[in-house]
Amino acid sequence: MAKLTTLPRNEAGIKTVVEALKDRFQDQLHTSQSLREQHGHTTTWLPNQLPDAVVFARSTADVAEVVKLCAAHKVPVIPFGTGSSLEGHLNAPAGGISIDLSQMDQIKAVHASDLDVVVEPGVTREQLNTHLRDQGLFFPIDPGANASLGGMAATRASGTNAVRYGTMKDNILSLEAVMADGSIIRTGGRAKKSSAGYDLTRLLIGSEGTLGIITELTLRLQGIPEAIRSARCSFPTVEAACEAVMMTIQYGVPVARIELLDALSVKAANEYSKLDLPEVPLLLLEFHGSDAGVVEQSDMFASIAEECGGTDFAATSSAEERNKLWQARHDMYWASHGLRPGCQGLSTDVCVPISRLAEAVGRARAKAEEMDLIAPMVGHVGDGNFHALLLLEPGNEVELARAETYLSWLADMAIDMEGTCTGEHGIGQGKRAYLAQEMGEALRFMGLVKAGLDPNNIMNPGKIMPDSHFHADD
Amino acid sequence: MAKLTTLPRNEAGIKTVVEALKDRFQDQLHTSQSLREQHGHTTTWLPNQLPDAVVFARSTADVAEVVKLCAAHKVPVIPFGTGSSLEGHLNAPAGGISIDLSQMDQIKAVHASDLDVVVEPGVTREQLNTHLRDQGLFFPIDPGANASLGGMAATRASGTNAVRYGTMKDNILSLEAVMADGSIIRTGGRAKKSSAGYDLTRLLIGSEGTLGIITELTLRLQGIPEAIRSARCSFPTVEAACEAVMMTIQYGVPVARIELLDALSVKAANEYSKLDLPEVPLLLLEFHGSDAGVVEQSDMFASIAEECGGTDFAATSSAEERNKLWQARHDMYWASHGLRPGCQGLSTDVCVPISRLAEAVGRARAKAEEMDLIAPMVGHVGDGNFHALLLLEPGNEVELARAETYLSWLADMAIDMEGTCTGEHGIGQGKRAYLAQEMGEALRFMGLVKAGLDPNNIMNPGKIMPDSHFHADD
Repeated sequence: MAKLTTLPRNEAGIKTVVEALKDRFQDQLHTSQSLREQHGHTTTWLPNQLPDAVVFARSTADVAEVVKLCAAHKVPVIPFGTGSSLEGHLNAPAGGISIDLSQMDQIKAVHASDLDVVVEPGVTREQLNTHLRDQGLFFPIDPGANASLGGMAATRASGTNAVRYGTMKDNILSLEAVMADGSIIRTGGRAKKSSAGYDLTRLLIGSEGTLGIITELTLRLQGIPEAIRSARCSFPTVEAACEAVMMTIQYGVPVARIELLDALSVKAANEYSKLDLPEVPLLLLEFHGSDAGVVEQSDMFASIAEECGGTDFAATSSAEERNKLWQARHDMYWASHGLRPGCQGLSTDVCVPISRLAEAVGRARAKAEEMDLIAPMVGHVGDGNFHALLLLEPGNEVELARAETYLSWLADMAIDMEGTCTGEHGIGQGKRAYLAQEMGEALRFMGLVKAGLDPNNIMNPGKIMPDSHFHADD
Repeated sequence: MAKLTTLPRNEAGIKTVVEALKDRFQDQLHTSQSLREQHGHTTTWLPNQLPDAVVFARSTADVAEVVKLCAAHKVPVIPFGTGSSLEGHLNAPAGGISIDLSQMDQIKAVHASDLDVVVEPGVTREQLNTHLRDQGLFFPIDPGANASLGGMAATRASGTNAVRYGTMKDNILSLEAVMADGSIIRTGGRAKKSSAGYDLTRLLIGSEGTLGIITELTLRLQGIPEAIRSARCSFPTVEAACEAVMMTIQYGVPVARIELLDALSVKAANEYSKLDLPEVPLLLLEFHGSDAGVVEQSDMFASIAEECGGTDFAATSSAEERNKLWQARHDMYWASHGLRPGCQGLSTDVCVPISRLAEAVGRARAKAEEMDLIAPMVGHVGDGNFHALLLLEPGNEVELARAETYLSWLADMAIDMEGTCTGEHGIGQGKRAYLAQEMGEALRFMGLVKAGLDPNNIMNPGKIMPDSHFHADD
């Protein structure tokens, strides 16, 4: 198992809080081993550190009440959405209370004429888009999992559409959050832009529950485009595919999606999703616009692809064919696991300037091969973001040690290229050392923000900040 | 004159610092009355509060040295770009040192293939775009003034292109800043997206120099579109024009610019810019895309406009005609002053959800008339942001009092509509009371961030936070 530090537990406080919560929340409060395990773990590769109890919150008032009680007794609170986090964000290294927000799943108001929607944090992205479809609207951010919107905000998630529509930071107008003392704040209204003071909205987005718990979101929506066209094209090498991506971005083709699958990933997708794609590197694309516009875009891409040695180009405006392809892309995380049955996946997440992408992907692939790691790669390559998914044998300590060496090497490479160790998964527990390396002196100021807003370090402790850092002044 | 509180001056500290700076910075340090007046005042309507000295910084090291010295003696520092701020951001209510960044005007690196550029904070938007033009690139954010990019970042500025390209918050990849203790931090690299810890980039954007001084910016660039088409259309009422704006946004026409001028503003523009436009409400538009795309877009707008009672629709792809029209738009601030020679302009800046725009503009106009205020209106209406420019007689206290009543009424209305008191100008000294009203409980957490990052309140004190607020715990 990967090594994780545990933090000191406030046993007396935890005991008092759990008893008080039992009284107050009755059947909303759970302490069974299995439920606690599930709330610490889920899809992360890191070992499980259980919370002491799980409260299913039904309202902002519930969340505020739990946090107030925890604040009074200096007991940690860890927010939980659907559990699809990958970096140990949900673990409880100092114990404490997991606040499950999945029952706060109301879509409170759709303002179609303003292109915005107000949702509770437990609403998932698929639930929202199903709800919006009849009104001709959609919310573009789509991480692989059917994550909760609160969790997506908390990790500054993105997905395949970010090249066109941005990430969570670009698509949230304002938030409601419960802060470390139990106060409820609203960070803004529904105006499309604002210069009103510090950007608490963006400060909470990506803060991984360490500064406050998001209890409501006002999201920016898009109209479903008049026309959508998808395309795919195979390439002899990942470098050639990346070259085509770079040129597409530089020529200003407004692609909505441009995704890379390496040969190994295509093999996995063929198997899992019953496809018949050439097992060489592949780009999947989507174009949004008018009927004429999407054809123009896909034609432009086709010429670029040809110039870069692309083959088997195919484009379609059929929704059925398109959905099949994109479902396969969204299933890649699980499809890749099929390459090594019974394995544990460990997803890397570096992001580099696009001019360095071909080199970064090439080196990451070569290094994985050199280290004898099975690592299919997919990427949101229009952003310079790609994932090598390391497929590890559970319990194989030697292999895990190699994987950790690889993670560190990969972070080094990305940071050295003026990129980042995480494009969209967040820091959690797993990447705290790389954050320190990436941020340098800036990390100290993140620590000052944390100390200012959560002086007792009860909000999801042990995440983002290295432990040593937060306690430096104690 | 509007009333401004002064804050306690640290006379001994200021004296020590000014002497030390004279020794160290020689002819980079100025204490003349006229230069100090200019560095406090410029285009704001608020009275002048002079700094004690002005340092012309030539490097990040210079800035860090000044801040370290000021930190040691608890003396305020106020960053200065071009002085085009409108809300008293540059005043020195507790005295202190103005750090003029205008000589830090180097464009350090253009990464054309990554669509980004690294600039010093004193580079102006026009300087940057002139530099980029030959490479087919541009930076889209365009406030009325030829502001410095550091100042634009500090106030979270936007302008006419925000409806398509977003505001400063959306177009800065990362920053370098000097923090309150003189530390130099870098908030990120050049990756297009990142989930690496707290978003210090966005926290500094819009912080108006109160958390740190921006000394370098990595900006996101756009390719100059293959085709640009502009259009104009007159409307019988501002409400009809706003109706057309709402429909254009809702139908997803990807306008690059959609600007409103009311009848009074058109009159001012005709006079100042020698135009011959019908003196009724006017929309100015710009479309970016392919040759076919921009015609498609302008045709779509033309049908919407017709449906809303628009007349005199005209569209052109001529660069010369387009530039003439947009120059007139950018000159509106000064053109409007021509409606009342010798007047002092006071620009309001509310922003509301677009569904409330027609009502908001209509009520703002009616209220100005009712209060006997001359107030031509222009708006970045695609964002729901509009400016009523109050033209006041200098020294007329009665009129100023009426203007202040109007400001307060306008902020009330915008906040009540789930909008904001400031879409792009910032809070400065002038809007602190409205910020408190708009943010409620959230203001306290802004105060905690400020206290955490600048415990001695030396960074541009008396801006954003109400005085009472920051000193509440002293």
